Amino acid sequence: MSQQTKFLLNEDQMPKFWYNLQADLPKPLPAVLHPGTLQPIGPDDLAPLFPMALIMQEVSQEREIEIPEPVREVYRLWRPAPLFRAHRLEKILGTPAKIFYKYEGVSPAGSHKPNTAVPQAFFNKEAGVKRLVTETGAGQWGTSLAFAGSLYGMEVEVFQVRVSYDQKPYRRAVMETYGARCVASPSNETVYGRSVLAKTPDHPGSLGIAISEAVELAVQRDDTKYALGSVLNHVLLHQTIIGLEAMQQMEMADVWPDVVVGCTGGGSNFAGIAFPFIGHGLRGGAKPRIVAVEPAACPSLTRGKYAYDFGDTGKMTPLTKLHTLGSQFTPPGFHAGGLRYHGMAPMVSHVKELGLLEAVAYNQIECFEAGVMFARAEGIVPAPEANHAVKGAIEEALRCKREGKAETILFNLCGHGHFDMTAYQKYFSGGLTDEHYDEAELAMALAGLPSVSA
Amino acid sequence: MSQQTKFLLNEDQMPKFWYNLQADLPKPLPAVLHPGTLQPIGPDDLAPLFPMALIMQEVSQEREIEIPEPVREVYRLWRPAPLFRAHRLEKILGTPAKIFYKYEGVSPAGSHKPNTAVPQAFFNKEAGVKRLVTETGAGQWGTSLAFAGSLYGMEVEVFQVRVSYDQKPYRRAVMETYGARCVASPSNETVYGRSVLAKTPDHPGSLGIAISEAVELAVQRDDTKYALGSVLNHVLLHQTIIGLEAMQQMEMADVWPDVVVGCTGGGSNFAGIAFPFIGHGLRGGAKPRIVAVEPAACPSLTRGKYAYDFGDTGKMTPLTKLHTLGSQFTPPGFHAGGLRYHGMAPMVSHVKELGLLEAVAYNQIECFEAGVMFARAEGIVPAPEANHAVKGAIEEALRCKREGKAETILFNLCGHGHFDMTAYQKYFSGGLTDEHYDEAELAMALAGLPSVSA
Repeated sequence: MSQQTKFLLNEDQMPKFWYNLQADLPKPLPAVLHPGTLQPIGPDDLAPLFPMALIMQEVSQEREIEIPEPVREVYRLWRPAPLFRAHRLEKILGTPAKIFYKYEGVSPAGSHKPNTAVPQAFFNKEAGVKRLVTETGAGQWGTSLAFAGSLYGMEVEVFQVRVSYDQKPYRRAVMETYGARCVASPSNETVYGRSVLAKTPDHPGSLGIAISEAVELAVQRDDTKYALGSVLNHVLLHQTIIGLEAMQQMEMADVWPDVVVGCTGGGSNFAGIAFPFIGHGLRGGAKPRIVAVEPAACPSLTRGKYAYDFGDTGKMTPLTKLHTLGSQFTPPGFHAGGLRYHGMAPMVSHVKELGLLEAVAYNQIECFEAGVMFARAEGIVPAPEANHAVKGAIEEALRCKREGKAETILFNLCGHGHFDMTAYQKYFSGGLTDEHYDEAELAMALAGLPSVSA
Repeated sequence: MSQQTKFLLNEDQMPKFWYNLQADLPKPLPAVLHPGTLQPIGPDDLAPLFPMALIMQEVSQEREIEIPEPVREVYRLWRPAPLFRAHRLEKILGTPAKIFYKYEGVSPAGSHKPNTAVPQAFFNKEAGVKRLVTETGAGQWGTSLAFAGSLYGMEVEVFQVRVSYDQKPYRRAVMETYGARCVASPSNETVYGRSVLAKTPDHPGSLGIAISEAVELAVQRDDTKYALGSVLNHVLLHQTIIGLEAMQQMEMADVWPDVVVGCTGGGSNFAGIAFPFIGHGLRGGAKPRIVAVEPAACPSLTRGKYAYDFGDTGKMTPLTKLHTLGSQFTPPGFHAGGLRYHGMAPMVSHVKELGLLEAVAYNQIECFEAGVMFARAEGIVPAPEANHAVKGAIEEALRCKREGKAETILFNLCGHGHFDMTAYQKYFSGGLTDEHYDEAELAMALAGLPSVSA
């Protein structure tokens, strides 16, 4: 069985609890500040945006948080997700390393995002909320919330970043198939959207702007709450089911990773695969190296500043301490739209400050090269976001080859690329270029960070 | 556990044999005739097109044909495939029926097609073949053969029906990602393609034409063989893994279907789900009703003639007895491109003549309505082809409601619609219409059937 390729869990092995890394951190997260008073906020301050159950998860210090049975019931549509050994890729690379990947593209939305969309919709439904409003970049998150909303009979409204709305028309059709309403952002439907369009009528949009629009609408309506697909503690919490399953599957494979690799935009799929392993290490277990791979065109972890900043461009969200390129920074329109966010999750940022992860950035074309190599070797076409994790894993495998080390590498293949084939078309036709941010714009955005003494 | 939704098999429960319905038929299949001599052909006549292992499967009367371990190894990337109970759909329909569906969209290509692409590539590779050439309609088959070819290191060349090539550009990008070459058919690359274009420069293409082009190229080159994604006995044989798994899963669910529903184009996914149940009935087991659902715009089973005909438009293939609209008939360009073929598999046609199945035809829009209802209820967006099976199952469930019968319905959800979202976009924007064939063209095509005394 040394040639075993797929490692599957039974349904009764699916985790019954999410793992909360906050319980094991040597130092607590910095406080979250009110955008007006700059004072630490409490749960009630978040009540206009989220139902109390999610707010309590956001601040919880409990190690294990129960996954409600109605959420597990929906999870079972695609979970437990498979873990694969990439035998063919190893062979092509000629590496002594063992490469494993957890595959989250088996969900109906094609990515890891339903892991949090489902519980978010569930806890909102339980709280009597009728409508969810959100933003989406590439569309993975909007699709997933539309999917979850349809299963719980909730209305869903999605502000999709303009550049992705134009690049990925299929995504909108999927959201509409699930019954959601989809609007290109910046839009004329919000005060903030109109203010952006007044200044820049052809603005490509950004997650930061779309968040502002969604938040603006959510606070205006009593029956409506806001949902976020990444960044927040409770979102990362829901994704830990990825790593919790992977730990059981690595045990089945009778190995333990020396390196865990994930791609990072807002940080949720990365946290999903990495946090359970980090926590295991903090509690005295083996400590794999943890590698976060981000796009060189939007390098919050490798080039951003660790500072207090807004989560959105309109400065409506609370302030959190995070690695940020500045909430006024607009990343260039590269294809991994899900990684196109000015800030990194506060939890991921904190973990980096604690020295518990390494970050690395790669350009668009080298990531597509890695993705095509992976597709031809392993048969799965990765999403452009996931190509970053593939690239990171390949680089680790090549290092092992140079060093003659038979290490075990685990990475998270967070989604398939079926909705992103225009990007691959462009890659094959030679029309794909590496995107670069403007250094002056970045400097200005960093100079404009809010001054907070904390 | 009466509310159980997903029924999963362990890997060691994955069938080790395909099921060959020919072994249990009360009457053998009519002979296959040489296109020139009109005399029955033997295995050697097919040798320019296929490797001998596949030819022997084509004519085998053995009940069980072993699945080689290297094929099972690749199958394990996504198999065994899940069976679901559609609790939410039942509730929405208010039916006393239990609805189950086998889901084949979990394969990396997103449909059932890799079930045969993988063994076809394997047996060709074993026979020393370097290159496979094939045709594809919607692109599901071309994608699947490209996928299988990449895993076995074979070149793959795909003639894609022009109308699908234009409607589904993402499919081509997927084929290219797997390393295949993709050409719109009719093309200038073959004598036959050039002859079609000379008469009709803007010809939308058809599977029949694309098959002629692929066959023409395959017989010209020594290192090249032809591969077909449906219709032939060995292709249907490989798909029986669907029904064999489903039988085990229905036992897990402690029910047995009263009705089995599949959509039919060439007949392979239909045969995959249905043949094991038909064979079980022929051997004395319970006999569910078997319902084949086809598009009203290309109704070979419900409007075609049971006669000897060519498999292709260029009259290069052997003649088989089948339900056909005539090999010169060009179906209109509806979106379920995988069902757009003038003929039905000889095995499926024979089974219908034996009274072992019922056939029904539905229009495009009502099938999309069914698909959207299914997506919102069950969370999976079906391929346009699969929408026909969904429609068929919903009609059976509504009949059960009218008749107050708590029957068990099983259907095959043969693929997801992620590559077909332009069709859904059109449906939502009101731009989708029911396509109709030209009655005069059909009459002419039927009048032009080859006259064979057999």
